Amino acid sequence: MYQNIREQIAAHRSIRQYLPDPVAEDTLREILEAGTCASNTGNMQVYSMVVTRDESLRKQLWEVHFRQNMVLQAPVLITFCADVHRFSRWCEARNTQPAYHNLLWFCNASTDAVLASQNVALAAESFGLGVCYLGTAVYNAGRIIDILQLPEGVIPVTAMVMGYPDEQPPLTGRLPAEAVIHAETYHEYSNEQLDCLYAGLEAGEQTKKLLEINKKETLAQVFVERRYTRKDNEAASESYLKAMQRQNFI
Amino acid sequence: MYQNIREQIAAHRSIRQYLPDPVAEDTLREILEAGTCASNTGNMQVYSMVVTRDESLRKQLWEVHFRQNMVLQAPVLITFCADVHRFSRWCEARNTQPAYHNLLWFCNASTDAVLASQNVALAAESFGLGVCYLGTAVYNAGRIIDILQLPEGVIPVTAMVMGYPDEQPPLTGRLPAEAVIHAETYHEYSNEQLDCLYAGLEAGEQTKKLLEINKKETLAQVFVERRYTRKDNEAASESYLKAMQRQNFI
Repeated sequence: MYQNIREQIAAHRSIRQYLPDPVAEDTLREILEAGTCASNTGNMQVYSMVVTRDESLRKQLWEVHFRQNMVLQAPVLITFCADVHRFSRWCEARNTQPAYHNLLWFCNASTDAVLASQNVALAAESFGLGVCYLGTAVYNAGRIIDILQLPEGVIPVTAMVMGYPDEQPPLTGRLPAEAVIHAETYHEYSNEQLDCLYAGLEAGEQTKKLLEINKKETLAQVFVERRYTRKDNEAASESYLKAMQRQNFI
Repeated sequence: MYQNIREQIAAHRSIRQYLPDPVAEDTLREILEAGTCASNTGNMQVYSMVVTRDESLRKQLWEVHFRQNMVLQAPVLITFCADVHRFSRWCEARNTQPAYHNLLWFCNASTDAVLASQNVALAAESFGLGVCYLGTAVYNAGRIIDILQLPEGVIPVTAMVMGYPDEQPPLTGRLPAEAVIHAETYHEYSNEQLDCLYAGLEAGEQTKKLLEINKKETLAQVFVERRYTRKDNEAASESYLKAMQRQNFI
């Protein structure tokens, strides 16, 4: 049990190995309700949480999420979606013509979805569950739309696996907080400041291993030339744009 | 003091009236550090938090945030930005050519920014502080870019005022959780289901007042024809697209 919420927040680590134990129905319900308590745009709640536990569906989603083992292992997979569909349906049924299929409401609805997701993550962790976000939700949005049968006006923004942890990984190192905090206005970084801010990350034991495995000279090269390459970034951008068009957001 | 994090999450309400009391430096620091503990894309931390306390800067931002009083009243205003600039600068300084100025990384970086913001909100509330998100960050992104001197690769995603509350508003009613939770796949709503899900919201005392003030027949009309109109939505979408182009995200 944590003394306060900040202790729990500070103890967050992504869990990638799960026990087969299911998550009890009432526990899951309480976790999802925590999601609905987050702030949202104009109290319009333009997001949806699709909770997938069925094994055959999770297997299809595992393919989409780059076959990451944890998607099969964890008993729960939640896809957080920007959703102007429900709200628009309601408006149409109430004698008015909604206009939320545009970039502004893609942004608003995406923010709503992500705020809800972080409440869900923290509520899950407060029950001793582990979670791991799946950024891959954005890479193959079109296939997720098919599998989860998302109607127009609904698009995946992020996803999360959830279950009881079968590992206790160390905390992931972060940049010093100074790196992401700006006082009053944005302060441009000098090269010397960048050297300082990234020194800890670059000096880590993990980095040394990565450079060896990837045969690279710098950690930045591992990110740019191995993990998140121009080719993949551009292909995924194009594919997500198509999904936004298909779902009628732009 | 809350028994657990879920109690605190459930007690969340947006605060719009603030006392003039400042937020102590070490308290603010601890709150912002909670932001850095959130999950983020590939541990690349592609977001920034710009913390504005200076009165003349807040006055400029107050104009941008539709002159909402709380922006002047609350001692702290935080602008959460998608930021591929810092990471790209680091890559360039490490002998590799980054490719993160695209839609994929706009999405990833926006998610990072919003995840951090929700940790910040909850950490602030755990200190007895109040917060209110400012969705208006998206409406006038161009002017915020000017005021906060955001370089290319950095764009506002959301913002938040923070300070000690001078009000104790009731909880905001939400749709029943069923409205936003889908089991296994997305389930299309029948009109009867929509009637049920929105009945509580429509029957509220607050709604009765809104219909009178706005001279409308349905709550949906208040949203669509008064609060978030087609004209405003389309203008803001165009203006945010321009900001994305200017910051080199697309």
